[in-house]
Amino acid sequence: MPTTADVDAGGGSFWLSWRLAVEANNVRAWRTVPSQCLHYLETYMVGGQYDKDLQFTVDQIWSYAHEIFVSGDGMDAWILDVDDTCISNVFYYKGKRYGCDPYDPAGFKAWALMGGCPAIPSVRELFRKLIESGFKVFLVTGRDDEIFRQATADNLHTQGFIGYQRLIMKPASYKGKGAVSYKSEVRKQLMGEGYRIWGNVGDQWSDLQGECVGNRTFKIPNPMYFVP
Amino acid sequence: MPTTADVDAGGGSFWLSWRLAVEANNVRAWRTVPSQCLHYLETYMVGGQYDKDLQFTVDQIWSYAHEIFVSGDGMDAWILDVDDTCISNVFYYKGKRYGCDPYDPAGFKAWALMGGCPAIPSVRELFRKLIESGFKVFLVTGRDDEIFRQATADNLHTQGFIGYQRLIMKPASYKGKGAVSYKSEVRKQLMGEGYRIWGNVGDQWSDLQGECVGNRTFKIPNPMYFVP
Repeated sequence: MPTTADVDAGGGSFWLSWRLAVEANNVRAWRTVPSQCLHYLETYMVGGQYDKDLQFTVDQIWSYAHEIFVSGDGMDAWILDVDDTCISNVFYYKGKRYGCDPYDPAGFKAWALMGGCPAIPSVRELFRKLIESGFKVFLVTGRDDEIFRQATADNLHTQGFIGYQRLIMKPASYKGKGAVSYKSEVRKQLMGEGYRIWGNVGDQWSDLQGECVGNRTFKIPNPMYFVP
Repeated sequence: MPTTADVDAGGGSFWLSWRLAVEANNVRAWRTVPSQCLHYLETYMVGGQYDKDLQFTVDQIWSYAHEIFVSGDGMDAWILDVDDTCISNVFYYKGKRYGCDPYDPAGFKAWALMGGCPAIPSVRELFRKLIESGFKVFLVTGRDDEIFRQATADNLHTQGFIGYQRLIMKPASYKGKGAVSYKSEVRKQLMGEGYRIWGNVGDQWSDLQGECVGNRTFKIPNPMYFVP
């Protein structure tokens, strides 16, 4: 039984091992966070360390991005994932014990259709700086195009994600296919159009693997769920 | 200034962010661990959590490996890195403030030539189980072939790494080239010989990237140094 002090200090050796292994892509196809992690996971998500890890990652991204020479041809691109990269589902997942409960497609659909996901502030700041620097930013999401386009576009706009090049959503033809093949195809098409993908940012390893992954990839922390 | 309680609890939010980012491959080409991490890093390396993270990773590897059907043709292969994957340099790095001091090629050479690196017990156990299961295990290291072959082979033997298929060391022709291109070439040759690379295990992302990386890759924790 963890003590309050353990929880406050972000302790819990199993939780630490588990989280590290998830972020290093050593654990795959997991369906739920092990229940014994719940107290530590909650403390991590709402107690400040998750926000610090996000900020640290964004700082790394920017230290790479700001040294890139952006040419005048408008073909220097970045790819950002949407869910839990640009906008946050942490409030929704709180009701799912932060991922200790299994994925609930109907519940998530209702949540996403409300269009109320708050921005992740550090990533929104990065997004703005990338656009200011002359990059074309593509938002690429596994959300179904037909069902979620309006709600997602509105949600992003409300949360200050304005000025991106394209919001690319999963078409019906890719239904049931994994994120790796869908997102690889999207990136291949962008490169076919002549875009140079300087960076690729996502909270899932399936955002960052496959083909044409980009010059650098960055894994945004997400201990709550796994997308194959 | 961290208190003893912070250190004992593995706290230190910057250290936690830094370590997570290193293991997720978000920080690259770093030369030293930031000095402010030293207390936390030392506690991590010798206080138990590093060993627990190693064991957790090895458990993930085995839960994947033991379900593979090993055919009778002797071509089912695993690749393991050597330094800080099979055998440990933690004792040496203790004298380098666990990586807060810069890399010292002469010092490391003298240490490696002594052949006294202890086994990482959890990985040695994995190594034995892989061989027992019928896999051919290839040890692939960036150590220079001419300088280190005898010391490395003796060190591995003394530490119980017995029965591997081949110890593949960096030939003079690859001197100065990065690990990604050298190790990619090795794996390509093995696949050319007909081996199926089921798994690839290393403490550096440069062990796990490039070509022919294997069916699954596993990142062994190492917060002490970065090999490009």
